[in-house]
Amino acid sequence: MFKRMLIANRGEIAVRILRACRELDIDPVVVYSQADKDSLAVQLAEHSWCIGPARAQDSYLNQDALLTVAKATGCEAVHPGYGFLSENADFADACAREDLVFVGPSGDVMRAMGNKAAARELMQQAGVPVVPGSEGGVATAAEAARVADAIGYPVLIKAAAGGGGRGMRRVFDPAQLEQLFEEARAEARACFGDDEMYLEKLVLNPRHIEFQIIADTQGNIVHLGERDCSVQRRSQKMVEESPSHALDQDLRQRMAVSAVAAARAAGYVNAGTIEFVLDPSGAYYFIEMNTRIQVEHPVTEMVSGIDLVREQIRIAQGLPLSVTQEQVELRGHAIECRINAEDPARGFAPSPGHVGLVHMPSGCGVRTDSLLYSGCELSPYYDSLAAKVIVHAPTRLQAIRRMRRALEEFTVQGPATTVDVLHQIMYHPQFVRGSYNTSFLDQNLDELLAWSSYGKEA
Amino acid sequence: MFKRMLIANRGEIAVRILRACRELDIDPVVVYSQADKDSLAVQLAEHSWCIGPARAQDSYLNQDALLTVAKATGCEAVHPGYGFLSENADFADACAREDLVFVGPSGDVMRAMGNKAAARELMQQAGVPVVPGSEGGVATAAEAARVADAIGYPVLIKAAAGGGGRGMRRVFDPAQLEQLFEEARAEARACFGDDEMYLEKLVLNPRHIEFQIIADTQGNIVHLGERDCSVQRRSQKMVEESPSHALDQDLRQRMAVSAVAAARAAGYVNAGTIEFVLDPSGAYYFIEMNTRIQVEHPVTEMVSGIDLVREQIRIAQGLPLSVTQEQVELRGHAIECRINAEDPARGFAPSPGHVGLVHMPSGCGVRTDSLLYSGCELSPYYDSLAAKVIVHAPTRLQAIRRMRRALEEFTVQGPATTVDVLHQIMYHPQFVRGSYNTSFLDQNLDELLAWSSYGKEA
Repeated sequence: MFKRMLIANRGEIAVRILRACRELDIDPVVVYSQADKDSLAVQLAEHSWCIGPARAQDSYLNQDALLTVAKATGCEAVHPGYGFLSENADFADACAREDLVFVGPSGDVMRAMGNKAAARELMQQAGVPVVPGSEGGVATAAEAARVADAIGYPVLIKAAAGGGGRGMRRVFDPAQLEQLFEEARAEARACFGDDEMYLEKLVLNPRHIEFQIIADTQGNIVHLGERDCSVQRRSQKMVEESPSHALDQDLRQRMAVSAVAAARAAGYVNAGTIEFVLDPSGAYYFIEMNTRIQVEHPVTEMVSGIDLVREQIRIAQGLPLSVTQEQVELRGHAIECRINAEDPARGFAPSPGHVGLVHMPSGCGVRTDSLLYSGCELSPYYDSLAAKVIVHAPTRLQAIRRMRRALEEFTVQGPATTVDVLHQIMYHPQFVRGSYNTSFLDQNLDELLAWSSYGKEA
Repeated sequence: MFKRMLIANRGEIAVRILRACRELDIDPVVVYSQADKDSLAVQLAEHSWCIGPARAQDSYLNQDALLTVAKATGCEAVHPGYGFLSENADFADACAREDLVFVGPSGDVMRAMGNKAAARELMQQAGVPVVPGSEGGVATAAEAARVADAIGYPVLIKAAAGGGGRGMRRVFDPAQLEQLFEEARAEARACFGDDEMYLEKLVLNPRHIEFQIIADTQGNIVHLGERDCSVQRRSQKMVEESPSHALDQDLRQRMAVSAVAAARAAGYVNAGTIEFVLDPSGAYYFIEMNTRIQVEHPVTEMVSGIDLVREQIRIAQGLPLSVTQEQVELRGHAIECRINAEDPARGFAPSPGHVGLVHMPSGCGVRTDSLLYSGCELSPYYDSLAAKVIVHAPTRLQAIRRMRRALEEFTVQGPATTVDVLHQIMYHPQFVRGSYNTSFLDQNLDELLAWSSYGKEA
């Protein structure tokens, strides 16, 4: 086993990785920016090194500083966490050059999955569904109509050179296709000096469903079921759950087969996530692969009983997966709420600063992963994730009720947080019924905010 | 479902019950003594009532006060927790008279299981092994020798009227039986004016193994496996785990059958525990039944995924068990450490008083049930249990490693605690090998104390 490992990250995920190291008898080396000198990870660590000023560019993204500490402290491996350098192929390569094991896939695999066009093509070859569309450009409105008829309405007309919504039209009615195609092409020509046009299926109100996979260096690939991450505010996930209420056994099985095929096609090694959009019709399409541990990984840990960070480290060590697909048994239902230090009353503006007393929920079926402790400081330099509350129970309804009571216990004096909004989500009929999609939160946010502030003015 | 329930207890178990109520949409009513006015349970409760001065006799054991609050607040049920009135048959009867559902078995069942002689006879009739011995008195040394030969050495000679070790002799060698029998009889005659003697098998260095059962009013009885509670200091449990390292599948199955038979013979309803001693030979004997929730119930919750307090309340409501025996699946390994506010350096003297900052361990596979919060006061009036740290992992070794790191994170400023001793137990070769019995802790305590203070003097 590795004797010592660098944790090239901060916040709750640094604590998460530190815990996994301890349990594997690996000595964790924590790095921190000047702003994080009193962070929980630093408090818990035996070895911690300052790697620069607060700005991420000067610290957590500073590859030279990270590699220097890793070498100086005798680390054999580097865990990148999520965000920062976790999907930076050059950093993975740089670790390899320094004889440091990067806990994740190789730089080449990251590059391949990071290029969306290349990844789409790879997935198609592997038989993984991608959003249907024209293969290459469409030259005329008539050709566009043929493609649209083939893939089905609604469709999205896009300029090859487009961006920011220009040269783009959503088409619901075949009768409007020709006019909208010409409009979009004219706009593309005017804006980009390039009128090459594409067409793809418009997936309306999809669910965001992702599959967790783990893959070892021996070629074993196992999936650990899905996570439904459709509760998003402006594309930022706020609540995740497993299993998804939208999948029946048949669909789950087909998507799992696609996820494993995607990982195999990519030659993937380590823990990864295959993200799909799920159309209300039941059709699903690959969007992208995340080549790292995800924020929401604990919901999978709760239902599978498998410690994903431990698994990551074992894989990086060259060990085989600790389970076969047949041994994986997903039990009960898990939900995660992300508690951000943000003020919902001020458009979710970050709410950094001094924290007074902290009391975290606990008890039967409750886990918290957090960077908080009584008296800590929340830095304005990084994302606002302060804690993740994760619950597990035999049924979805029990899990929802458990989350409600856990959020009721969550106490942080000082910063504004998203805890009340999350609490209200747990009571919203659409969430309780499980009939939500990625539009749910943005559509209902005003109502949820009104509910969560109810009584506070009294 | 009940609308409102009285929690007739304090400390971590009051918090535990409050959480279960919340998750069932039952409104919990918390009672507290004057010493507990700022307790965590009171902080979390919407309704809390003072029931008297600090002394338990005047508050938590004050039946009139408890029943008055229950009636005045419109409670339909009373949960007694553990300790205090939880095994008081008269209180269960008094609740029934007041039309309050007592969350536990009936007073009659409690009485039957509370009388050790009657319980022993009931178990024998039900085919549950009890410690072998003379049925009734033995009149002469010769008769004692015949019984001893039949049950096997070592044996224990006991005076019927005995107590405090007087009129009692342990006999390892048949050649010494006659002499020791006469000595014991003479001592009994002198001490108690009564020389009726008994004989029973002396179980040396047993393991303490208990089975959790749940039984509903429809006659369904399900067991949820065993807990090994052999790590005891002077008969006080400090560490519990499930499953036990001492049981193979065959022995586990036989003991489980005995446990269910015991519950059935007792006409038992609600959650209960059948306690056995397990001889190193593999023979096991019923000792007693605990007719309440136990301190160590979370280890069973971790491996079974079943919320026992929820189950208790559902049973009290007349609902069937939420699982059949076939649906019960015990997964992985769980360990609980009891963290007491006691000073190991001063003979484990209670260490009440003001608590400064508190930081509880959490993360993957870790649960804490606790009465602590930053700034709380620990009362000298009650037991010294401050927190239970419970871990769950796929294997026993992983659970041990997880417990080590969890205890390393456990931070309580102010009172002395048992956390360092528990941490050392997690490294002791006998514990790690799983080859301990009820003598382990008392025999190794000096060594464990020396280890746990190592480095602190520096």
